[in-house]
This record gives sequence, C-alpha cells and structure tokens, in this order.
Amino acid sequence: MSLTVYRKAHFNAAHRLYRKDWDDSRNEQVFGKCSNPNYHGHNYELEVGVTGSVDPETGFLIDMELLKKLIREEVEEALDHKNLNVEVPEFANLNPTMENIARVIWDKLRKHLDDKFELSVKLYETPRNFVLYTG
Amino acid sequence: MSLTVYRKAHFNAAHRLYRKDWDDSRNEQVFGKCSNPNYHGHNYELEVGVTGSVDPETGFLIDMELLKKLIREEVEEALDHKNLNVEVPEFANLNPTMENIARVIWDKLRKHLDDKFELSVKLYETPRNFVLYTG
Amino acid sequence: MSLTVYRKAHFNAAHRLYRKDWDDSRNEQVFGKCSNPNYHGHNYELEVGVTGSVDPETGFLIDMELLKKLIREEVEEALDHKNLNVEVPEFANLNPTMENIARVIWDKLRKHLDDKFELSVKLYETPRNFVLYTG
Amino acid sequence: MSLTVYRKAHFNAAHRLYRKDWDDSRNEQVFGKCSNPNYHGHNYELEVGVTGSVDPETGFLIDMELLKKLIREEVEEALDHKNLNVEVPEFANLNPTMENIARVIWDKLRKHLDDKFELSVKLYETPRNFVLYTG
Amino acid sequence: MSLTVYRKAHFNAAHRLYRKDWDDSRNEQVFGKCSNPNYHGHNYELEVGVTGSVDPETGFLIDMELLKKLIREEVEEALDHKNLNVEVPEFANLNPTMENIARVIWDKLRKHLDDKFELSVKLYETPRNFVLYTG
Amino acid sequence: MSLTVYRKAHFNAAHRLYRKDWDDSRNEQVFGKCSNPNYHGHNYELEVGVTGSVDPETGFLIDMELLKKLIREEVEEALDHKNLNVEVPEFANLNPTMENIARVIWDKLRKHLDDKFELSVKLYETPRNFVLYTG
Repeated sequence: MSLTVYRKAHFNAAHRLYRKDWDDSRNEQVFGKCSNPNYHGHNYELEVGVTGSVDPETGFLIDMELLKKLIREEVEEALDHKNLNVEVPEFANLNPTMENIARVIWDKLRKHLDDKFELSVKLYETPRNFVLYTG
Repeated sequence: MSLTVYRKAHFNAAHRLYRKDWDDSRNEQVFGKCSNPNYHGHNYELEVGVTGSVDPETGFLIDMELLKKLIREEVEEALDHKNLNVEVPEFANLNPTMENIARVIWDKLRKHLDDKFELSVKLYETPRNFVLYTG
Repeated sequence: MSLTVYRKAHFNAAHRLYRKDWDDSRNEQVFGKCSNPNYHGHNYELEVGVTGSVDPETGFLIDMELLKKLIREEVEEALDHKNLNVEVPEFANLNPTMENIARVIWDKLRKHLDDKFELSVKLYETPRNFVLYTG
Repeated sequence: MSLTVYRKAHFNAAHRLYRKDWDDSRNEQVFGKCSNPNYHGHNYELEVGVTGSVDPETGFLIDMELLKKLIREEVEEALDHKNLNVEVPEFANLNPTMENIARVIWDKLRKHLDDKFELSVKLYETPRNFVLYTG
Repeated sequence: MSLTVYRKAHFNAAHRLYRKDWDDSRNEQVFGKCSNPNYHGHNYELEVGVTGSVDPETGFLIDMELLKKLIREEVEEALDHKNLNVEVPEFANLNPTMENIARVIWDKLRKHLDDKFELSVKLYETPRNFVLYTG
Repeated sequence: MSLTVYRKAHFNAAHRLYRKDWDDSRNEQVFGKCSNPNYHGHNYELEVGVTGSVDPETGFLIDMELLKKLIREEVEEALDHKNLNVEVPEFANLNPTMENIARVIWDKLRKHLDDKFELSVKLYETPRNFVLYTG
C-alpha cells in the first residue's frame, strides 16, 4: 500500500550557472546563455510529495497546513525573490542547476519531517524543464 | 517493462472534515475551517492509471472507452454534485479527507478491473493539494 | 491606449442553486443536480482585472500587493470555505449562480477602488464553465 | 538516491487506428470512430524523463540542450505534421495507438542515450488520455 | 453593464491547408508542412462565449446545460474525429485554417442562439496558436 | 466583424524594480522585495494578438510562421536569459515593471506590423500576475 500527498508552492529567483574555479570562457562553453554574468531568472514551481500511511484517527497522512507552513518557512522564505548565487548560502560553492536546487530543497525539508515519511521534490525551472528528486 | 495508461475525470462535491464522535470544538481544532458545519466544496480532478501490458492484437493496454465508462459509472455518477458526508454511503463513518476519498475511489474501481492490471488513483482536491494512492 | 493588470485568486465553497419561493420540484426542474438540497461545491478561480494608466513615477498601474490584499480581505476571507447560501449575506435572497457570484465580487471590490480605474471580474466555477463581468 | 530530469516537447499528427488484416467492419467495431478511414489527429504532448546521477563537475544529470536536440531530431522531425500510418515507417505494420507511439518514441531515444541512464516517455494523446512507458 | 458566460469544449480532427485550384508546389510554398497531402491533425480546444444579461428569475444568462448540448450537437458531433477537408461540407471549398474553422463554428452556433445574445468563439489549434472570432 | 489570432512565446530574465534617482531605502519602501539589489527573475509568458481580417485567398489573417519569427527576433532574442535592467537598452532609464515590459514589447512589434493590423500584448510575470496592453 502506498499513499503520497502533494503540495505545490512557488518562488521566483535570479541565478546564473557557473563555477568559480572556471574562467568565463569555459563557463560559457559549458553553460551557454545560462552563464550570463548579469544573471537571468525563473518562476520556480515546486511539488513536494510526502509518502506514508493514513492516521486512522484523522484521515490525514500529514496535516497539509503544517506541510504548507514548512514549505513556506524552509523554501519560500529562503529562496523567493533572491539571487541564488549571491544570497543563498547553500549555493555559495554549488552551481544552482535545477538538479542541485531540488537537492538543496529536499535536504532542507527532510530534516523537519518525521522519519516515518518518505519525501520527493519535483521542481519546474520552466514549464518545459523540470526535475524529480527522491533522496 | 512497464506501461501505464491514464484517464482524467472530474466531479464536484461538498464536504466537511469531521468525526461524529468528536465535539465541534475538537473538530475545529484539528480540521480548522475545513470542518465548517455548513460544508464547503471542491472541483475534484481525478487521474486513473492502469498498468499492464499491451494486447499485441489491438495495441491497447485497455480499451479507453471502457475505462472512461467505468469511471463515469463508478465515480462520477456516485460522487458528482453530491454532499460526500450526507449522501455517499462510504463516508457515513469515514472522514472525507482527500486521502480517504482516493482510497474509496480506488476500491470502487479495483473490483471491476481484471487482476492482471495494477491501479493507481491521483486526486486533486485543489490545484495545490493532491494525493496519489496505488493500493 | 488601454492597459489592464490582472491578479488571480482562489476560494472554494459549497452552494446550491435554488429559489426559496419555489418548491423543490420546480427548483430541480430548472436547476437540475445543481439544486441538490445537501449542497455541492467548487474550487472557484478568480481573475480580477484593473484598467487604467501607468503611474510614470513607479511604472505601476496599481500596486499589485494592495490589489492582492484587497482581494484577500474582500473576497477570499468572505467566501473561502463557506456555504454561500447559508453563510454569505449577499446570497440570503440571491441565487448563487456563477453570474451572480461574479456580480457580488465586482460590487465588493468596486467600492474600494479609485474611480479612475475600470474593473473586470472573471470567475471559473469549473475548468469548463466561467463568466466575465465588467460592470 | 534517485534523480530524474524531464523535458517537454510537442508534435501534431494525423492517424487512424486499424489493422490491415482486418476488414473495415471489424476495425470499426474494435476501434470505433478512431478508425475513421479518412484519419483524425492530435496535438501530442511529450514528457521525456532521464534518470541518473548528477555530474559533480557541472551539476547536470544531462545537458538539457543535448536532450532537447535529441528529442527534436529523433521525435519532432520524424513525427510532426505527419500522417503516422502513411508516412512513419515504424507504423507501416503497427497500429499507432498511444501505447505503441510511446514505445516507438522510447526505442528511438534509447539507442542514443548512454547506458548509465534510464529513460521514461509520457505521451498525452489528448488532455484526458495519456500513457507512461518506462521500457 | 456586460456579462459573458463561457463554455469550453474539445474535438480532434485531421486537416491539411491547401487550395484545390493551386498545384502542390504553390500549396507547399504558401502553407509549408501544414499542406502535407497525407494530412496532420490537432486537438482543438474551443471556448464559446455568450454575452447578454442575467435573467433575474433564474440568475442565469443562459442555461449552461443547453449551451453544452448545443455545442455538442453543432460542433463536436460535426467535427470530432473527422477529416475536415474530406468529411465536413463547410470545408469542401474553404481552406480549414484556424481562422476559417472559428468562423464556421460561429455560424453554426449563431443560428441557434436568440438574437438578444452576442457570440464569441475562441479556438486553440495548438497550445501556442489560437484565434478569437466575434462575428 | 472582429478576428484576432494569438501566438504564445516565452522568455526568462532577471530584473529588479527601482529608480536610479531614488535611494535604496525609498526603492525598498515602494517596491519591497522586488527591489532586491541582487535581482530576482521570472519565466515571462507572452501572448501576442493581431487583429484584422482574413485574406480570402489563403484563409490566414497573418502567416503565423512570420508572426512566430517576428516574436523570436524582436522579443525572445532581445530579452531571453537577460538582465533587463543591465542589458536591455529600453530599460536603461525605465523601471522594468510588467506594465513597462509589455509596452516595450508592444512598441518593438508594432513597428514591424502592417498598419492594417491592431496589436495586443498580454504578459504573464507569474502565473498569478499579468498585464494586457493594446496600445
């Protein structure tokens, strides 16, 4: 038996793809226009999934109000309207690709969830490019 | 090898979250505004998935017209434009959370599907809150 | 020159279509399953449009944070998770069709907007049925 | 640990469901209006998923520009604005059901992807009917 | 005061863009791959708008069940799963561009609507290309 | 008689809301977190509408391939993956609010369209905030 509840959220941010230890020319060769030194940005759409079993007393897997609050505090307040490269400590030395952003979000949420739950993070960087990370 | 076909459907309904054996104050404490005694409601969006193998003669996993008809008869006719708490027997003593609604739909469909198929039910209560149940 | 800004919002509610001065049989004849005495419900999606000219100082037609706050206070807090027939005074003697709900929302917002603005309200009752009211 | 990146694409095409070795009457009995000898058509929406691990140097699972180019060359150029039955060799003797189209797309992409990756293909034939194939 | 109700519908069909009185080379020059002699196809999404005033007795501008039935009979049954060029009389000598399809649908619906209503037809040929016709 | 064709496009960009002639404190007071000096960003979704009459020879209002090419050259190549404040000349002294971005896009397209056409630009800054400009 498998049951998962999902909550969608949203944040927008600026970023650029690059490695500090590469020069601009190599960054541009590998990351193309995504490496623009002046940054570009996205509306990131997030789907957080929590897998577990239903509490027979409430009929809830998890209280969605608590999940919504957790996502707001851990993800939206940390990333919304931010420059990921400059202002978010997790990306000080980590390239903010959608793969790495999904992993950072997963790590931030995981530590606040009971061990009985499994966690998945789906992150849309654009309507056509997205990533799913399940830990 | 894994192949799944999906069919979307829709119904709208009123409900409230509550337990008959709790008083109003405890219901409100646990379920908040979702426990409004006068009910509220949703447009529920449903995605039914059937996993199996392709019939080499037809190229179908299952005839989608049959699946559409099954969903209409078992789910839409039973739940559409209904008050889930008052009019749907499965919720007479079961809190109609999205988790429980998904499980009830899964049970209703499962008994009409050949054993060779696996079944999944994804149910959107709102565009931001949804649940996946795979039995 | 015409410029309009739009803000989307969301609420869910229960309702039934009926007239108090008609008996149940006539209500059902005219309103069908939408007249279910036990109510049904919807996720209402709302698009509020404000037409005017851009303030050359800010580049804003209207501060979207103020518009968002106005919609939250006047519409979402008044209608979300409510039974429209029972709990919303505007529908005490008004049939809560999507046409009438759109007009009530328009009236509630209009009185808080500067006369220099025009107002439109688009309301989705389901993904397939919606209404536009421009006053 | 599991990470999957997804890329959406689009093509539109005509098709009919039928078997050459069946007469028209049997084709219509099994495939209904989808067997119309004059064809009908769809906007097919495609989601290609690639599962693997992140390259620690780039932060990419796979370069999305390469994946986009692969989908364009192998799928869009082969299927877009085509009559699947008449013009696409893979369906010369294969009924172009959504199940079979998904399998053909999977086969076309699989041979160009490194063995270290897993591949999934989700194909929407209409907004309400879709299929997921994972090989 | 302006009020419009909308109803969405769907049909899928095959077509090609061409003029019988042009040779293939000129058709291809003007219409490109859309002129493929073997046809291609689309999922057409339709939004029908009816403008008028609310009946104070019912709170309806028009009974949406009647509008839904009219669209099904006049549009969906006439166009769904059809080859527009070959099987739909209106296109015997009319190029089935999205502009012309919208006008044909408008004409088909207009004659069944009371003169007191205005009519608009929005037709999506693909998620990125669409047309609005208001008569 | 009124006919409008629409084409959707997409670009993503970084920006901040601010006026050079205001100090940081006043910028933050008026524009809030949108004035973050390190920038944030969006996936901008664009709908370009062209109103006119149908060419009876082709059945086209305008060749959508030409419109698509015009949008790509004038809008996508100028704005995609750019920092609007730093790299786009039109915003050197103009606050890049969604209102102003829509007007800049309208101006860029207008000069390449025949006078017989009317032009509208709808721009989504987020899925919940958007603007329509008709010149």
